[in-house]
Amino acid sequence: MRRRVVSAPGKVILHGEHAVVHGKVALAVALNLRTFLQMTLRNDGKVLLHLPNIGTRLHWETSELEPLLAAFPAGLIDSQPPSPEQVEKLKEFVGAAEGAAAATHSLAIVAFLYLYLSVASKCGVLPSMDILVWSELPTGAGLGSSAAYSVCLAGALLSGCGIISYPLGEGQSVARWAEDELDLINRWAFRGEQVIHGNPSGVDNAVGTWGGALRYQSGKILPLKRVPTLRILLTNTKVPRSTKVLVAGVKDKVLKFPAIMEPVLASIDAISQECEDVLKAMADHPSQEHYLVLEELIDINQHHLDVIGVGHSSLDRVCQVTASHGLHSKLTGAGGGGCAITLLRPDTPPTIVAAATQDLDACGFECWETDIGAPGVCVHSPPSLKAEVQAVLSGV
Amino acid sequence: MRRRVVSAPGKVILHGEHAVVHGKVALAVALNLRTFLQMTLRNDGKVLLHLPNIGTRLHWETSELEPLLAAFPAGLIDSQPPSPEQVEKLKEFVGAAEGAAAATHSLAIVAFLYLYLSVASKCGVLPSMDILVWSELPTGAGLGSSAAYSVCLAGALLSGCGIISYPLGEGQSVARWAEDELDLINRWAFRGEQVIHGNPSGVDNAVGTWGGALRYQSGKILPLKRVPTLRILLTNTKVPRSTKVLVAGVKDKVLKFPAIMEPVLASIDAISQECEDVLKAMADHPSQEHYLVLEELIDINQHHLDVIGVGHSSLDRVCQVTASHGLHSKLTGAGGGGCAITLLRPDTPPTIVAAATQDLDACGFECWETDIGAPGVCVHSPPSLKAEVQAVLSGV
Repeated sequence: MRRRVVSAPGKVILHGEHAVVHGKVALAVALNLRTFLQMTLRNDGKVLLHLPNIGTRLHWETSELEPLLAAFPAGLIDSQPPSPEQVEKLKEFVGAAEGAAAATHSLAIVAFLYLYLSVASKCGVLPSMDILVWSELPTGAGLGSSAAYSVCLAGALLSGCGIISYPLGEGQSVARWAEDELDLINRWAFRGEQVIHGNPSGVDNAVGTWGGALRYQSGKILPLKRVPTLRILLTNTKVPRSTKVLVAGVKDKVLKFPAIMEPVLASIDAISQECEDVLKAMADHPSQEHYLVLEELIDINQHHLDVIGVGHSSLDRVCQVTASHGLHSKLTGAGGGGCAITLLRPDTPPTIVAAATQDLDACGFECWETDIGAPGVCVHSPPSLKAEVQAVLSGV
Repeated sequence: MRRRVVSAPGKVILHGEHAVVHGKVALAVALNLRTFLQMTLRNDGKVLLHLPNIGTRLHWETSELEPLLAAFPAGLIDSQPPSPEQVEKLKEFVGAAEGAAAATHSLAIVAFLYLYLSVASKCGVLPSMDILVWSELPTGAGLGSSAAYSVCLAGALLSGCGIISYPLGEGQSVARWAEDELDLINRWAFRGEQVIHGNPSGVDNAVGTWGGALRYQSGKILPLKRVPTLRILLTNTKVPRSTKVLVAGVKDKVLKFPAIMEPVLASIDAISQECEDVLKAMADHPSQEHYLVLEELIDINQHHLDVIGVGHSSLDRVCQVTASHGLHSKLTGAGGGGCAITLLRPDTPPTIVAAATQDLDACGFECWETDIGAPGVCVHSPPSLKAEVQAVLSGV
């Protein structure tokens, strides 16, 4: 099988954004807007990288890439983060090949080359291949699109060179790797994230790898054993914001009013923990009462996020519009604009979802009906993919 | 001087409503919507009580009232709360005089008779007088109208019989009593509140007596030494609510999610304390920075009150409408409807206030521009009163 398709989910923060910076628990969940990678092995000594979302299409001869291998001793990736010298070298190479490309494009290409060369170094051969990566995720919206990209690259490259298995059996439409293989994918994807972000938390690639939900606190990432899949609306207000400025604003508030703000962070922490308990209970026996609690936690946390100063009128609008349809919403991620999630129940009628979506569209927002608690990185048989993805991957 | 006019302010809770039930600090402040009492001494053995707000006009011969005195031994009011027997006896008497009057009307009359007879017993004479009480306060809106009524009655009756002084000097337009006299007025007014409410906290009569602001926690009432007068808009959403049901709802939430809700109550407590500090600092040197903090505390507490479940869409509306004019609002009192306060700055232009008021009126709310931190019970020279009050007191 010369053509392989891997996908990985995005992520949203369900509870604990910002509080996590202050040592509290955050719950990150896999978002079923996925990034798809198609790898086709070639035998003509060419490497093609096609990233239609960012309008990038590049190709190299493996002979061009070979000199770069010197900076990638076998096994280095396992023991050390990407060095500034490695990244600089790749940036120079990409800059030469690409001209004056924007920084994000450039970083996506550098991350690919970093993982490609690490694999090549480990296998002792520079494989010839087409790589096409396309994502349902908007980029730069805090939804883990770069991590989903890195996870897909890690899974496809490691598997393509035989470092890990190719788990899809005859007649299967979708398959996942074993735990220890996922662990390797996650560690390599984290290196990709380090190339792109410098100092990432590791949460996004962990969610992209394992899917479901995970608990994150003080640098410790713990995937939850079993979580339900929950229907949501994801709304992108498209209001731009600076995570750095928002994080600094929260810190200022906590310093200005410690006696008022510390308890709010403690309450957010308790919300994350309560939510974790409810998700665990729902995995066995989901009930209306569980949904009531999830909705209540969403409403409370949205108020807390306003209190710590990361709300925005656009997010208030999302909450009001969805509340008018009986739905509950909160911002997710940095706030100050950006994205919001709206919980749907299993029995929320399509008419309600359509009406809410229409109203959100009318506000100028972009809105997706999707799931959280989605599976992590998977391998797909191409015919099993939905038509839209098949069309993109076949270059239509 | 046979005609005397006494006034007392209403009250609003600035911060700490509901949290106070859970042992946290609340700040109550005097509201400059006042109740006015006019007492005119007569010498024809008649007692007239006129309460135009509730359409009540009654008169008795002092000889009719004399048999009631047996239940009012001199000094009893100072040592004991109104007994069920005393109240029952007065209710029977009022019922006979009044027919099937509504309970609140009846309680206002009973409270008058209770205080009148206590004074009479103490002085050994049943004074003949006209009493007219009229209030700028809406009744039943949690604004301390019954306490303002009791405070006015206590001040006028105690002063009228010479138990305390009549502080208004020649040529003065307004005067207050000395501290020890205010203390007696407050204690008698509390008895009036006990007649009306059964088991009041004593906060409302304390605010009506001392004015300004006071701190209330676990049954302990502490008037603040010096506080600034702050301009506000008071908005009555006119949405009816049950304080009892709201208080029970908060208790349920705290029991359901203790780890989430206890910190919110702690944060509200810290807001009250921070506000107290700011008010003290403002009494000396009010600054723009102080107003910024007061506005921030209002916004935070409004979110917290939503979190503990006492918000209402009508209150959200008040917050949105005033926010659209750059103003900050919170519910005051029980929530779930009822009243909200909106802070104005000394330099908030009248055009802004007028526009906000117009928008609030358009929502079907009733809106007053007034002050908090107003003076407590005072005596007025009638000509110094504003025309509207003069008109009401002169029976026009």
